Amino acid sequence: MSDQFVIGLDFGTLSGRAAVVRVSDGKMMGTAVHEYPHGVMSRTLSAADGQMLPPDFALEAPDDYLEALYASVQGALAEAGIDPALVIGIGVDVTSATVLACKADGTPLCDLPEFANNPHAWIKLWKHHGAYEQANRIVELAQARGEAWLERYGGMLSSELALPKVLETLEAAPGVYAATEVFCDAVDWLTWYLTGQLAYAAGDSGYKRMFQDGSYPSREFLAELNPGLADVYAEKMNAPVLPLGARAGGLRADVAQRMGLPAGIAVATGNIDAHVTAPAAKAVENGQMTAIVGTSACYVVSGPQMVLVPGIFGVVEGGIVDGSWGYEAGQTAVGDIFAWFIDNCVPASYHQEADQLGIPVHELLTRKAELQQVGAHGLIGLDWHNGNRSILADAQLTGLMLGQTLATTPEDQYRALLESSAFGARRIIQAFRDAGVAVDELVMAGGLVKNRLFMQIMADVTKMPLSLCTAPQPGALGSAIFATVAAGAYPDVRTASAAMGSKAENVNTPDPERSRDYDLLYAEYSRLHDYFGRGANPVMHRLKEIRRDALARTQRIDNAELVAGAEPLAGDGQLANDGQAM
Amino acid sequence: MSDQFVIGLDFGTLSGRAAVVRVSDGKMMGTAVHEYPHGVMSRTLSAADGQMLPPDFALEAPDDYLEALYASVQGALAEAGIDPALVIGIGVDVTSATVLACKADGTPLCDLPEFANNPHAWIKLWKHHGAYEQANRIVELAQARGEAWLERYGGMLSSELALPKVLETLEAAPGVYAATEVFCDAVDWLTWYLTGQLAYAAGDSGYKRMFQDGSYPSREFLAELNPGLADVYAEKMNAPVLPLGARAGGLRADVAQRMGLPAGIAVATGNIDAHVTAPAAKAVENGQMTAIVGTSACYVVSGPQMVLVPGIFGVVEGGIVDGSWGYEAGQTAVGDIFAWFIDNCVPASYHQEADQLGIPVHELLTRKAELQQVGAHGLIGLDWHNGNRSILADAQLTGLMLGQTLATTPEDQYRALLESSAFGARRIIQAFRDAGVAVDELVMAGGLVKNRLFMQIMADVTKMPLSLCTAPQPGALGSAIFATVAAGAYPDVRTASAAMGSKAENVNTPDPERSRDYDLLYAEYSRLHDYFGRGANPVMHRLKEIRRDALARTQRIDNAELVAGAEPLAGDGQLANDGQAM
Repeated sequence: MSDQFVIGLDFGTLSGRAAVVRVSDGKMMGTAVHEYPHGVMSRTLSAADGQMLPPDFALEAPDDYLEALYASVQGALAEAGIDPALVIGIGVDVTSATVLACKADGTPLCDLPEFANNPHAWIKLWKHHGAYEQANRIVELAQARGEAWLERYGGMLSSELALPKVLETLEAAPGVYAATEVFCDAVDWLTWYLTGQLAYAAGDSGYKRMFQDGSYPSREFLAELNPGLADVYAEKMNAPVLPLGARAGGLRADVAQRMGLPAGIAVATGNIDAHVTAPAAKAVENGQMTAIVGTSACYVVSGPQMVLVPGIFGVVEGGIVDGSWGYEAGQTAVGDIFAWFIDNCVPASYHQEADQLGIPVHELLTRKAELQQVGAHGLIGLDWHNGNRSILADAQLTGLMLGQTLATTPEDQYRALLESSAFGARRIIQAFRDAGVAVDELVMAGGLVKNRLFMQIMADVTKMPLSLCTAPQPGALGSAIFATVAAGAYPDVRTASAAMGSKAENVNTPDPERSRDYDLLYAEYSRLHDYFGRGANPVMHRLKEIRRDALARTQRIDNAELVAGAEPLAGDGQLANDGQAM
Repeated sequence: MSDQFVIGLDFGTLSGRAAVVRVSDGKMMGTAVHEYPHGVMSRTLSAADGQMLPPDFALEAPDDYLEALYASVQGALAEAGIDPALVIGIGVDVTSATVLACKADGTPLCDLPEFANNPHAWIKLWKHHGAYEQANRIVELAQARGEAWLERYGGMLSSELALPKVLETLEAAPGVYAATEVFCDAVDWLTWYLTGQLAYAAGDSGYKRMFQDGSYPSREFLAELNPGLADVYAEKMNAPVLPLGARAGGLRADVAQRMGLPAGIAVATGNIDAHVTAPAAKAVENGQMTAIVGTSACYVVSGPQMVLVPGIFGVVEGGIVDGSWGYEAGQTAVGDIFAWFIDNCVPASYHQEADQLGIPVHELLTRKAELQQVGAHGLIGLDWHNGNRSILADAQLTGLMLGQTLATTPEDQYRALLESSAFGARRIIQAFRDAGVAVDELVMAGGLVKNRLFMQIMADVTKMPLSLCTAPQPGALGSAIFATVAAGAYPDVRTASAAMGSKAENVNTPDPERSRDYDLLYAEYSRLHDYFGRGANPVMHRLKEIRRDALARTQRIDNAELVAGAEPLAGDGQLANDGQAM
């Protein structure tokens, strides 16, 4: 095995990364990353005619993915300096549910001239939230009909899932829908491109495509939702669903040639980007929770049987690793909130002080905040600046900061935000445990592991010692691990993970006194969480409605000014990228 | 009258001001201001031995007041260039309850060597909050005994009143208490100093010294509170109470000589600084509310009879103007909150943008915020960063900001803070009206009248056209008006106000559409106000307790570090001054 290699592909929101990985021990031989030329299209359809997009849209260009695919593979191979003939397999993970509408040969609809200027013909990125209304209707109908699968998703559905996005296309762009022969997620579109054969991956299909116990939502259900949707699974999503680690097919000759790789080598079924971190972090046994904490957070853990956990994102048989039930929960924003705070709420005097010390302002805030005793700032926050994924599953919730006085400092509010994210994590762990899903170990991964104050707060708040995924590129390593199994180099993912994964234990240990003090603050967090999150005071929903109305008025005024020849206002700035992990 | 003048003295938190004012028309002939050399002593007893002060302390030095008295009078006379022999009276207002412990001749205890280093022998400034626990006990006992006077104060008492501060002295510094022959407020101490005769002013006595219907709280009540307090009014506060506009006495010969004024001219009874604004603003008729909005806010209005208004600061017969019942309510911080935000929450990029435009950052925020439609920011705030005076009367409440998203901008939060203060004002007006006190006109005064966005928001939120007090120095003018009445130049304050006051009407008018939109946001504010302010979730109280415990631990750690020779931490920064009105 020491002279065998695999390629792990890790496609994020803004770029695609490739890594050449040694099969025997997971050693990273070479990596390369390539940014998508058009990035996220959230204000204009910049890859086509530049038209303004509706609010909540987040689109991408398939050609950008292919450019990143070739550039990153070639770059990684060049850096690795190995003989490409020794590569035995490819694994791939992508953000999800990132949805494409294609022809039967895999051509995305946006590549057809007649649909090039239709936003619905482009990739709907995971954080495209145009299907909010559709997601609500799906939930309401599923509740009304008592659809059993709904509970697998914590009783609620995110507008980020595939079905709401497909329904949105049907209702907003029926021509695109009619011309679409295959709807698939990007995880499957890339393996389809690599192999020439479409297969859906079990993990993504369970979490994002509502494939449970071997079937999709029924034709009756779909027809009641919208008659035009009745046969969507039967006609436009009828490829087989394969387990994680299975061989989706062999590498197409023309693609192999262009990459400089052997034709026909194994391509593993695709996977969700965050989920591949679990094997990279040696966290594939039942009860080992992987926390991938960056701009947002994803928590995955496997268990021996299916139990229902209210408010989690999904439970899927073989969802994380074949042979166990995989559970996923998440936070819609973590590092994004810290980055928002750094960009918008830190005064000029702190920048000057940081400059004088020759450190980033984030380091200055950390130094000031880490001196504090727990609770000394008198604040409590809610970490819902981008909604709540788990355990409330409500994208319309918003952030909160409570307890400010005239003596409240920037580091006070910064620390309270870090703590609120840790409280959100504890709330998720609590939900799992309350339902009977063991969480025995917490393995941290993602960009925020570099934030030493956040890591210690996580340990103190969750009262768990933290393990750390020490792989430099966990996503690419994780996909490489699946590639080895698809290529037959290891019998299963657990064995491959043990050989190739990378983890340090007890990197942060909870301080008993701080943990006890955090219990008091967590009790306050929980009370606010339930009050604002469970309907007692839906003020956040109402403010969002009021905001929508106000922005619609602004838009009308802007339009009037445009007609009059004036400059348009900057308007509502949807974040065009993920921001930087703090 | 056109060759008669009076001097109005206006003593604030940080400085004393004098104005020479023409009796016939209120024309300001000359003014001068002088800062107190030691300012507010909140961290150390800087005027004495420099000892550290407990948290919540705010002390001042009586000698500073006298220095400001002479310097400002002499400066104002010099600027006015009038013949000092034409001055017929002096009026004075001071912050309140700003309390002194004195010997029978008026010497403050801190001027005696044996008490010079005792914090309780110094002036306890209005915002000294060391008597929080005492204020609570007074309320609890008054409730238990069914003391009728409690309702006059909205059913609750602030720790800023005189009696809690005196009780604090008894319990924390019994030696100071025993040696004190007279407790008085600074409003009375200054007229005592000017005339040589102690008289208590009716307004201040009613609002701050609990003098109601001709008497103080009973000996039985006081004895039950603390046996040592039983005779405090009888023995240490037994001077007469005189109506506002009455002559407290004639100017002492030695003081007159030093000032260059005629000896024996009328000195009016002292008054509370904010209250003198009403006559300066021509707002002394029943139903005319004066809003003095600066670092904090004070709302005063007179009415024909006494009604009980839950949660206001006080109702006093002749409290604002003789012959009416005067009502007072307030907000503990308004401009202070905006200043806190500007200092702590506005990013460096905004400072750069402001610099490029050549405008202050506050003006930049205003320009960005005033473009917004009502509700477009999606935020709601609670304006309790320094507690809530009216109508919750709870100093332990804290601020809140709800609704942040990753797209929330500094101007969004800034505007939401302005609105929260206006909602607080509307809540106060609503409380008055609900109780049957008419509020027919709203006359704005104070530093925030220069904030055009705040003024328009006040009009839109309260749905009232705003009048504006146009006097350049309303405090000094108001005291001057009382001086003319004390000197017999006018028969009463209403007549003097009509001749000398200064007001513009309809300076801002409410926009019906914005007012309608604000109704929605005000409903949300009211819901949060009651939820967090009326006991359903006392999270703010609990966080303050947790904070106190944490800071006590920090203090222990600091002390340990001090012993070890390390630098002390900056610790909890109590604001040492009022900040600037934004």
